[in-house]
Amino acid sequence: MEKEKQFKPTKAETPQKRRRERNAAAPKQQRSKREQGVREHTERPRAKNGKRGAKPVKIIFLGGVGEIGKNMTALECGEDIIIIDAGAIFPTEETPGFDLIVPDITYLVENAKKIRGLILTHGHEDHIGGVPYLLKELKVPVIGTKLTLALVDNKLREHRLNDVKEITVTPGQTIQLGCFRVKCVNVNHSIAGSLAFAITTPQGVIFHSGDYKIDLTPVAGEPIDLKTISDTGSAGVRLYMGESTNIERAGFTMSETVVGTTLDRLFAENVRRRLIIATFASNVHRLQQIIGLAVKYKRKVALSGRSMLNVVEAAEKIGEITIPSDVLVDVTKIKNFRDSEILIVSTGSQGEPMSALTRMANGDNAAVTVGNNDTVIISASPIPGNEKLIYRVINNLYRKGADVVYESLENIHVSGHACREEHKIMHNLLKPDYFIPVHGEFRHLKKHAQLAEELGMEEHKIIIPDIGNCIELTSKGLRLAGNVTSGSRLIDGEGIEDEKASVVIDDRRQLSEEGLFIVSVAVSHGEVIGEPAINSRGFVFDFHRDYTREIRDVINRAIESYDLSRGTVDELKKVIKRALRNYLLKKTKQSPMVVPVVVEL
Amino acid sequence: MEKEKQFKPTKAETPQKRRRERNAAAPKQQRSKREQGVREHTERPRAKNGKRGAKPVKIIFLGGVGEIGKNMTALECGEDIIIIDAGAIFPTEETPGFDLIVPDITYLVENAKKIRGLILTHGHEDHIGGVPYLLKELKVPVIGTKLTLALVDNKLREHRLNDVKEITVTPGQTIQLGCFRVKCVNVNHSIAGSLAFAITTPQGVIFHSGDYKIDLTPVAGEPIDLKTISDTGSAGVRLYMGESTNIERAGFTMSETVVGTTLDRLFAENVRRRLIIATFASNVHRLQQIIGLAVKYKRKVALSGRSMLNVVEAAEKIGEITIPSDVLVDVTKIKNFRDSEILIVSTGSQGEPMSALTRMANGDNAAVTVGNNDTVIISASPIPGNEKLIYRVINNLYRKGADVVYESLENIHVSGHACREEHKIMHNLLKPDYFIPVHGEFRHLKKHAQLAEELGMEEHKIIIPDIGNCIELTSKGLRLAGNVTSGSRLIDGEGIEDEKASVVIDDRRQLSEEGLFIVSVAVSHGEVIGEPAINSRGFVFDFHRDYTREIRDVINRAIESYDLSRGTVDELKKVIKRALRNYLLKKTKQSPMVVPVVVEL
Repeated sequence: MEKEKQFKPTKAETPQKRRRERNAAAPKQQRSKREQGVREHTERPRAKNGKRGAKPVKIIFLGGVGEIGKNMTALECGEDIIIIDAGAIFPTEETPGFDLIVPDITYLVENAKKIRGLILTHGHEDHIGGVPYLLKELKVPVIGTKLTLALVDNKLREHRLNDVKEITVTPGQTIQLGCFRVKCVNVNHSIAGSLAFAITTPQGVIFHSGDYKIDLTPVAGEPIDLKTISDTGSAGVRLYMGESTNIERAGFTMSETVVGTTLDRLFAENVRRRLIIATFASNVHRLQQIIGLAVKYKRKVALSGRSMLNVVEAAEKIGEITIPSDVLVDVTKIKNFRDSEILIVSTGSQGEPMSALTRMANGDNAAVTVGNNDTVIISASPIPGNEKLIYRVINNLYRKGADVVYESLENIHVSGHACREEHKIMHNLLKPDYFIPVHGEFRHLKKHAQLAEELGMEEHKIIIPDIGNCIELTSKGLRLAGNVTSGSRLIDGEGIEDEKASVVIDDRRQLSEEGLFIVSVAVSHGEVIGEPAINSRGFVFDFHRDYTREIRDVINRAIESYDLSRGTVDELKKVIKRALRNYLLKKTKQSPMVVPVVVEL
Repeated sequence: MEKEKQFKPTKAETPQKRRRERNAAAPKQQRSKREQGVREHTERPRAKNGKRGAKPVKIIFLGGVGEIGKNMTALECGEDIIIIDAGAIFPTEETPGFDLIVPDITYLVENAKKIRGLILTHGHEDHIGGVPYLLKELKVPVIGTKLTLALVDNKLREHRLNDVKEITVTPGQTIQLGCFRVKCVNVNHSIAGSLAFAITTPQGVIFHSGDYKIDLTPVAGEPIDLKTISDTGSAGVRLYMGESTNIERAGFTMSETVVGTTLDRLFAENVRRRLIIATFASNVHRLQQIIGLAVKYKRKVALSGRSMLNVVEAAEKIGEITIPSDVLVDVTKIKNFRDSEILIVSTGSQGEPMSALTRMANGDNAAVTVGNNDTVIISASPIPGNEKLIYRVINNLYRKGADVVYESLENIHVSGHACREEHKIMHNLLKPDYFIPVHGEFRHLKKHAQLAEELGMEEHKIIIPDIGNCIELTSKGLRLAGNVTSGSRLIDGEGIEDEKASVVIDDRRQLSEEGLFIVSVAVSHGEVIGEPAINSRGFVFDFHRDYTREIRDVINRAIESYDLSRGTVDELKKVIKRALRNYLLKKTKQSPMVVPVVVEL
């Protein structure tokens, strides 16, 4: 993947240079107005109101609002579009059997020529998981911090996407993308290299928080850049788009360093036992703390799970994580060490069925056999919906004799998202004219809107967005200005599925809940010949009785009542289906999917 | 349902009378030994060790251990068996489409003659949901408190089970069932009429906690009977079986009265708005508090949801709930009142898809249309696994403009189960010789065992049970003594399904995750005739390409390669299945269920 540096102006650059670069990248005729917009943001009173006559800025939501996952927002002004994040979401029981869900990007494909760049807030799946699917359809530069792009690169390799233009940015840096001037602002989160964006537009500054928390004692890197946030607020913010994940939680999210303290105690209490720690591979600061403790307590570290190996390798390569040379051992070699000398760091903290930890718990991890002398620490909390999976893993680890330490019992995880008091600080520093809560289910967005009102913002200056909404920021204010094509793309195996996905999902749901009944008949020269064949799957019968005879009768009666010489095979199928469905419902109170099959001879 | 009183001896009865009654109910030859066992429990030193030569007491676990749900434990001694609870559990995504799961009672059916009674701790589904299925196969008296039996009666009516012998007990009362003398002990829980049992056996006293919390300021009824628990402990408890649901929570569960205080504030804050409160129908004390507040704030109460109506009717009939005569209005009549005059009390606090609240949130509840002037209070917390359902309901209620108050934000629910400090009190008062943790997933049972050890019990005096375990209590101690037939019975529609259930579940899972591919061929006189018909359901294809031609070729080649005149139709099916499965896996990386259907002409 080619790393481009040319789009990377620094704060020290001159306005003239900026203008020249922009001129090289966007159509001529819109230059002058757009530039006025750009320059205005430094003059507070005019910036606050947006320039009269300047083009409106559209904020287009393609994912991540009304849901937690697949974040994707486009900002559009005149002939320029920038995309913030391209996330994915994992399927639920409502979309069984699919691998991934990403936003429908029809609108972006239709406006491909306008797109100036994809800016990434950070490297979590719900922000970068959709990048390869987007890049398969759009040639667009990808902009993010070192770690974010390293994680994107892993995906691009998997998808054999070469030739992608990548621009590495650092906090404090500004980058011009069409008429948008994007300033990268350091924030804390559960992954290194997380950014907020202060985006100067022809309608003034739009501040996008990304995913953030306020951690003034981070494990590595800098605390959130409150100075820049405060300065941006003083200069005037027209619109704040703020994440809402933990808006239901009172108080302040604890610092990541708290986890180190708890882990240190657990290392000290378990000196004779083997330690297994499961955590999110992407939380490199957590991994750094864990590796530091391994060094302190003289343990070798074995990494278990593909994503753990991938992330550590990527993070080490770019210097986001430091591992002394003799600390790592291959997980297949752990039998050469005493239990007290080993720490296994594993994926699977959400109970993912194929993960390293789940396989340990089930006794089918070739490298690691869990037993009485193991202490397993799950340094994560369940994402809603994963509770049953992770509790099953914990139960199975206990059954194998291990001791298990998990969040209900210990202080071994902190969230990466701001709680209510942190949100108040952010609103207070930014003092925006308008507010759009993002990154949350509807209840989160609503609660965040209510918080903004409590802090003094008028209700009409807040819009709770929905996927597909196009919200317009003009000199007159913020308003909902229609909708664009939007939705979900379900990805299964190698194919990408659009329109037919909902039919597929409905079918799968019916099959899984009610089972299946297949009736095959042979038709020759307009007549049904032979006996119908019956097959059922996933269907519960009263096996004490034999319904087969009755079912054949029902089908035969239906066939006889239908004059095929005057109708069609499709109608015959409907007749069979209706008759059998009614019969089964009456006899068994169940509605399996009835599939009539006609073999034409 | 016939209510029998004859088996209801009081504490004042004479040992002679007890002996006579037992003699009438059990075989002669075991009388004397058994009676010694019964009498011994008052003499502490001998009771503590169990009578040498007395028959062992078997504790047989048929459900409710290693899981939360379908509780069922049998105590067996000589020719007597008593059953504690007959619960059900609701299906999960692993058993899609089933209505209910109850314990496999093969062991009880095989020993039907020994069974002296089914004693119920309380009226929750995981303790009484299996009663009708048990009574369909076993004629056994059912013993419980007034409310428990009233809720059982609702079920028996649904299942048209008449002629059931029921014995109503009250706390403090003792009942003799074969060689078991069962003392009912009042405990607090989230349903009225909850009991623990102190069971005197030939091997000394077994104390079963039922589901409990320590609530010294209950809304109605008495606090947990700590005096009797303490006295039982002083007289000597050989075995304690204690529930473990909240063993992961530190501290002490708050009193139910706390909820009343919060609700009172919410009533006061929302005087002009319509109020909708969703809670568990079975929590009659919560309902009593809510109705009291409705009276205080001059609101009419409309009940919404079938189980809410059923439970309130049953509870009012037996005096467990008191409703002033003019308070209730039919939910269809609420439009005749101002918003400020109405309180709707609804089912659906777990987001159950067909419940009254879910239908309100979806806008398809005929009686209640939710809007801007509604405040919805969800007085419950999500049972693990229900999070997504309930959050979807909350999101939809917000979308309708309602304000929603739920547990993440307010103190509007307390658990019905003891936390760690309460468990310590129970162990301390009972001072049992042996301990079996019950009512929990494996991790809960393990943590409860660890708590007992922290309190000074030796590890070898504790057994963590599994479903099917037969644990024996003798004068020598407690030991695992093999297993009995056990498992799950899946109930779907009207049928009860045993052996074939796992095949059905596996089929449904494959169908839901991978979809389905049906190939039908017609066979006549040992030859395949005509073209194979292909149908797929719930299967994602790359619709940009047309595979149909290729698939037909694959099938035709498979058919041609198989000489039907020398083989069977079943083998032909296998050949088709294998060929198509390989093809689909290669082309699409998916493995739908392939169902070959042969129509024989």
